[in-house]
Amino acid sequence: MTSAAPALGVWLVGARGSVATTVVAGAAAVAAGLHPATGMVTETPPFADCGLAPLGSLVFGGHDTVGCPLPKRAEQLAAGGVLPHGLPAAVGAELTAADAEIRPGGPQPGDTRSDEELIDAFAADITDFVRRRGLGGAVVVNVASTEALPAGAHSGDGRLPASSLYAAAALRAGCAYVNFTPSTGMHHPALADEAEASGLTWTGRDGKTGQTLLRSVLAPMFLQRALEVRAWSGSNLLGGGDGAALADPAAAAAKNAGKERVLADVFGSAPQGEVHIDDVPSLGDWKTAWDHIAFDGFLGTRMVLQTIWQGCDSALAAPLVIDLARLVARAGEVGLTGPRPELGFFFKDPDGASSSLGEQFTHLLSFAERLRATR
Amino acid sequence: MTSAAPALGVWLVGARGSVATTVVAGAAAVAAGLHPATGMVTETPPFADCGLAPLGSLVFGGHDTVGCPLPKRAEQLAAGGVLPHGLPAAVGAELTAADAEIRPGGPQPGDTRSDEELIDAFAADITDFVRRRGLGGAVVVNVASTEALPAGAHSGDGRLPASSLYAAAALRAGCAYVNFTPSTGMHHPALADEAEASGLTWTGRDGKTGQTLLRSVLAPMFLQRALEVRAWSGSNLLGGGDGAALADPAAAAAKNAGKERVLADVFGSAPQGEVHIDDVPSLGDWKTAWDHIAFDGFLGTRMVLQTIWQGCDSALAAPLVIDLARLVARAGEVGLTGPRPELGFFFKDPDGASSSLGEQFTHLLSFAERLRATR
Amino acid sequence: MTSAAPALGVWLVGARGSVATTVVAGAAAVAAGLHPATGMVTETPPFADCGLAPLGSLVFGGHDTVGCPLPKRAEQLAAGGVLPHGLPAAVGAELTAADAEIRPGGPQPGDTRSDEELIDAFAADITDFVRRRGLGGAVVVNVASTEALPAGAHSGDGRLPASSLYAAAALRAGCAYVNFTPSTGMHHPALADEAEASGLTWTGRDGKTGQTLLRSVLAPMFLQRALEVRAWSGSNLLGGGDGAALADPAAAAAKNAGKERVLADVFGSAPQGEVHIDDVPSLGDWKTAWDHIAFDGFLGTRMVLQTIWQGCDSALAAPLVIDLARLVARAGEVGLTGPRPELGFFFKDPDGASSSLGEQFTHLLSFAERLRATR
Amino acid sequence: MTSAAPALGVWLVGARGSVATTVVAGAAAVAAGLHPATGMVTETPPFADCGLAPLGSLVFGGHDTVGCPLPKRAEQLAAGGVLPHGLPAAVGAELTAADAEIRPGGPQPGDTRSDEELIDAFAADITDFVRRRGLGGAVVVNVASTEALPAGAHSGDGRLPASSLYAAAALRAGCAYVNFTPSTGMHHPALADEAEASGLTWTGRDGKTGQTLLRSVLAPMFLQRALEVRAWSGSNLLGGGDGAALADPAAAAAKNAGKERVLADVFGSAPQGEVHIDDVPSLGDWKTAWDHIAFDGFLGTRMVLQTIWQGCDSALAAPLVIDLARLVARAGEVGLTGPRPELGFFFKDPDGASSSLGEQFTHLLSFAERLRATR
Repeated sequence: MTSAAPALGVWLVGARGSVATTVVAGAAAVAAGLHPATGMVTETPPFADCGLAPLGSLVFGGHDTVGCPLPKRAEQLAAGGVLPHGLPAAVGAELTAADAEIRPGGPQPGDTRSDEELIDAFAADITDFVRRRGLGGAVVVNVASTEALPAGAHSGDGRLPASSLYAAAALRAGCAYVNFTPSTGMHHPALADEAEASGLTWTGRDGKTGQTLLRSVLAPMFLQRALEVRAWSGSNLLGGGDGAALADPAAAAAKNAGKERVLADVFGSAPQGEVHIDDVPSLGDWKTAWDHIAFDGFLGTRMVLQTIWQGCDSALAAPLVIDLARLVARAGEVGLTGPRPELGFFFKDPDGASSSLGEQFTHLLSFAERLRATR
Repeated sequence: MTSAAPALGVWLVGARGSVATTVVAGAAAVAAGLHPATGMVTETPPFADCGLAPLGSLVFGGHDTVGCPLPKRAEQLAAGGVLPHGLPAAVGAELTAADAEIRPGGPQPGDTRSDEELIDAFAADITDFVRRRGLGGAVVVNVASTEALPAGAHSGDGRLPASSLYAAAALRAGCAYVNFTPSTGMHHPALADEAEASGLTWTGRDGKTGQTLLRSVLAPMFLQRALEVRAWSGSNLLGGGDGAALADPAAAAAKNAGKERVLADVFGSAPQGEVHIDDVPSLGDWKTAWDHIAFDGFLGTRMVLQTIWQGCDSALAAPLVIDLARLVARAGEVGLTGPRPELGFFFKDPDGASSSLGEQFTHLLSFAERLRATR
Repeated sequence: MTSAAPALGVWLVGARGSVATTVVAGAAAVAAGLHPATGMVTETPPFADCGLAPLGSLVFGGHDTVGCPLPKRAEQLAAGGVLPHGLPAAVGAELTAADAEIRPGGPQPGDTRSDEELIDAFAADITDFVRRRGLGGAVVVNVASTEALPAGAHSGDGRLPASSLYAAAALRAGCAYVNFTPSTGMHHPALADEAEASGLTWTGRDGKTGQTLLRSVLAPMFLQRALEVRAWSGSNLLGGGDGAALADPAAAAAKNAGKERVLADVFGSAPQGEVHIDDVPSLGDWKTAWDHIAFDGFLGTRMVLQTIWQGCDSALAAPLVIDLARLVARAGEVGLTGPRPELGFFFKDPDGASSSLGEQFTHLLSFAERLRATR
Repeated sequence: MTSAAPALGVWLVGARGSVATTVVAGAAAVAAGLHPATGMVTETPPFADCGLAPLGSLVFGGHDTVGCPLPKRAEQLAAGGVLPHGLPAAVGAELTAADAEIRPGGPQPGDTRSDEELIDAFAADITDFVRRRGLGGAVVVNVASTEALPAGAHSGDGRLPASSLYAAAALRAGCAYVNFTPSTGMHHPALADEAEASGLTWTGRDGKTGQTLLRSVLAPMFLQRALEVRAWSGSNLLGGGDGAALADPAAAAAKNAGKERVLADVFGSAPQGEVHIDDVPSLGDWKTAWDHIAFDGFLGTRMVLQTIWQGCDSALAAPLVIDLARLVARAGEVGLTGPRPELGFFFKDPDGASSSLGEQFTHLLSFAERLRATR
């Protein structure tokens, strides 16, 4: 993509959340040279010359159900230490520009529109964004709070979950789609045929930013060394919007399914042990994850590994969201449509790929080479 | 190697230490079906049909400077929880047989023999072992306590360090060689020409059994995710013989050089932070390793990962020693001589291979395929 | 109590559990000089000359609903590392003697006896034990698995919980009573009048052996230093019988109420944060408790303390059970009846005493002085 | 002290360091109601009506060898997260006022003055401060970087260490003295007679703000429960000025002597284990302290407690410095001269008092009652 190429739109579902705000502020800060691209995989050498959309060419918009303007959200995040002090002011113009492209999400309580009407409305918002801003296209990225896991494929009332309404809108608007959350999104059976027929690219479920990232390197280590993992237990403490959302046991179940998938995938079956997610409001966006792994060595000797991860979820997620938008858009350009297991490196639920981070990275590098070769 | 093939000798330098005792007792226990082969890589499916020496065909002997018989050493290890209760009795015959093949090591204080005389004596012990027991060959494995790191290539008196005397004896006896410790061994410049000309196989330095094993999967994770590691600090607590040996700052320096090599290799330069090794006699053979990794995420957000590894060093090392003896012997059979980077998976100092465990495992699997193809 | 004084009976409810087995084996081992009295408070200098029953004079019996003989239970515990290897054999006579004094507990499913009949039967077992063995008296100690927390004061069917049946039997048999578990026991309102009128001594609920012990010294530290605890979160992993019992959410609720009481008592109100108890069978009797304490310092600076406790519950509880039996028996001798807040040092629910371990220890020392003065 | 009483001077040795800057900024912020008095013991209820100098009446000055003005130092600390953003501006007037009272410390390299001349010069600075500002008196508080531990009582050249020069100046100026560091200060034998004869009050060595604070509550817990501590090992990571100062092994030795004193005091002798202090510049003022405590329970069962403390040293120290200045000044008013073991609660080296925080707090409360009674 040369500088003459039309810009790429990034349409954020949950556009006023912590992750989305960090995406918009951070993309502007890095593009302006205010900060290095720490945590952004697509700015490392293997991704040079792959034809990815330049960081400075990204144009942001999105849906949200809350009204707090992005510049104010950014100030809140800076007060909580998620964004550097001074950054909201330094990128105020970009935050304001993105805020002007945020449209009301839904459905809100009392909204009488049918699923079809909602999908149409959302798709119209996106196509209007692409048209007005003269974009080459847009990628829809779900960074909204985790939805409760539906008991079955359909909820009782036959309605689609909100995350799937947005995914359907992406299809209708002809946009690639990334699901950075554990919500259903494009994985809903009602969307399967349309997705298949769309010729579009989509990826993911559930960005891998902390405990599961660790598990995806530690579990293969135990396996490769023929050590016998007896029990793998975990506890997560976090505040912020995600902490509150995950205090809902149904939402936590969606999240934990991803965390346990990596262990079952690597070991063939899940070891003993549970995962807890506690809402601790005073921790804000900071997450602490403790893992306790009881394993046996030679002759049955009992050993233990414990890990404690103290990270800021939005700061971990935001650069990966930018990575994914760029990679998915480029995949579509080179004709790679449908789900992309090459991007399993980013996800807890890796579209059928291996759950080992090392193998996922190898596949990602091959993917980069393919993109480079296709320029 | 079929059942008709002559047996493989394993000559342990430090044959009465904790690791060696666990090797002899454990090989017997697993061969007899008393315990599964937990922690032994060569008993996993990728190594089937690779022509490795059957576990039950291994014959053990070695050098040591102490006289405590192996059955008694095994009882001591069982009292300390390193070996299961009852195991020393169950494999008493095998321990006694190996003990009968242990010869005095050296040089002890007051020994007036020259380096040449010592090498000759050690080599004679090994060739006598191979001849008397009718072995197809033997692999010499250094599992002695860590030596002090020499200030230069030669110590002040022009003498070889003990570990290099044994390595030279392996060359003289025509045996493959494995250095499971950080000592100099075959890496001494005075041995370089003879080693090169020998047509023998050797490998290693310094088995990777805990903190460095973890570092070899965690450091690549940070690199792949473009997270900026600011400081990586570590503390090790251990008792037993290794704890006492490493209380010597010069010996600890040899050990720590290996621990820091993996970080420098992966990141290009070593991050801030030190590594401590404390002798805590009451911990016995159990080692606790704490690592504190300070890293930056997007926009410079400060985050921390901490790991606590509580393992039994002998139980971690022993199955890998058996793996290496089998793999090195087989490498020689198929004509792979000189240092073997394919075995970097096992070592802190991987003979020039990558320091990433994932990449090392990939190479090890290729090596296994090559062995299988050569049958 | 001189050597001429009649012996003291210790009647264990849950007499074949891990704690009870460790009590019987350990009392015998320490009395025989096989092990020091580590973990036993009443064998430290402040309790000398307080007239406590000599360790060797204790006679054990009890109720249990399972039939596995104590010598076999002891072998199981030795296999799991809870008791030293060789100890079950060394104290086999004492285990067999105690096993002969274990009577069937209840009610078992299908038992048609009324509460009154059960209390009578249990009391008869205890008085028969005291009479036959010529004891000066007996202390009934509840060390059974934790019961589910009843929704109200009475369960729906108007029946007493089993723990209260045993407490009522202690009253009827004229015995002092110790509740080492979070179960209701003597705290049942239906027993209040009879207990009050009995002139007997009782104490406790819920021995403080790990996470809560730590909390009872750490919470006062934060308070004394005027540091503001924002959130105190905890996770417990344990196997064994207790792990399985506490996997029942109602039983866990009883346990957690005690854990959170200490924080609410010290701080005036409970900080944010939850406590989890996970059943991890492969950990056996070993418990790992992780606590994460988020606190504010000067000018609102955010700080964190984390603790990881890896202990063997039975080994922590057993010596305290012996302490309590001796102290409660002696309290009765000197006319201290009713609940004894002086023993709050041992409990999560300290009979109205302070929740600070330091203050509890001061009160315990005063109590010891009073016992000594009354000789 | 009524509002009519003259104000109290606080003369900070190391007046431009992190602790001193936090003291000045924090006292102003709390006095102005901008922040609660978190971490300040003398603002809790037991210290009401004790006649302590009102927070708003404190007047700050001091010595330092560096020239960076306090408002700029405060901005640096705010950038590092030690002070809240916006605070340096909010208390700019107070920072500027204190900065105007900072005089050059010493001796600097090349300074040719004798010890007597230096003491005279420092004392003159202090008396000038008291006179010009019309203070009722001043307390000299050492918050400078830790000095190297002298090999003997005197350094080789017969000169006093700088910390003792300042202590001597306090005596000469007739001021009470607090040593918040492990440096020698008033503990120098050459000052003993003069200090004794002075009729002044002094206290301390080495404020207890993290690892040692924890040890002073945990060690008594193990002792009270008769648990046998086998080994207590610790590792500290910190950057900032203190990290660099303590990278000097001699300075670290001074610090560690205090850390180990508490264990030896509580247990009668020091358990196995070492303490490390690493300079990790990227951690800034944040300190991480890991402790690993191996202990035995009943029948020799091996157990472990680990603690991880992540705190900001300046934020922990500053409120205690203010506490000590107020308490020492008031102690002098009521005639309590010489060293004050009642203040052992604040120190690693508690002037001969108990090393148990609980007992120290009891003594501190008695002291508060005595102050109240003397009004």
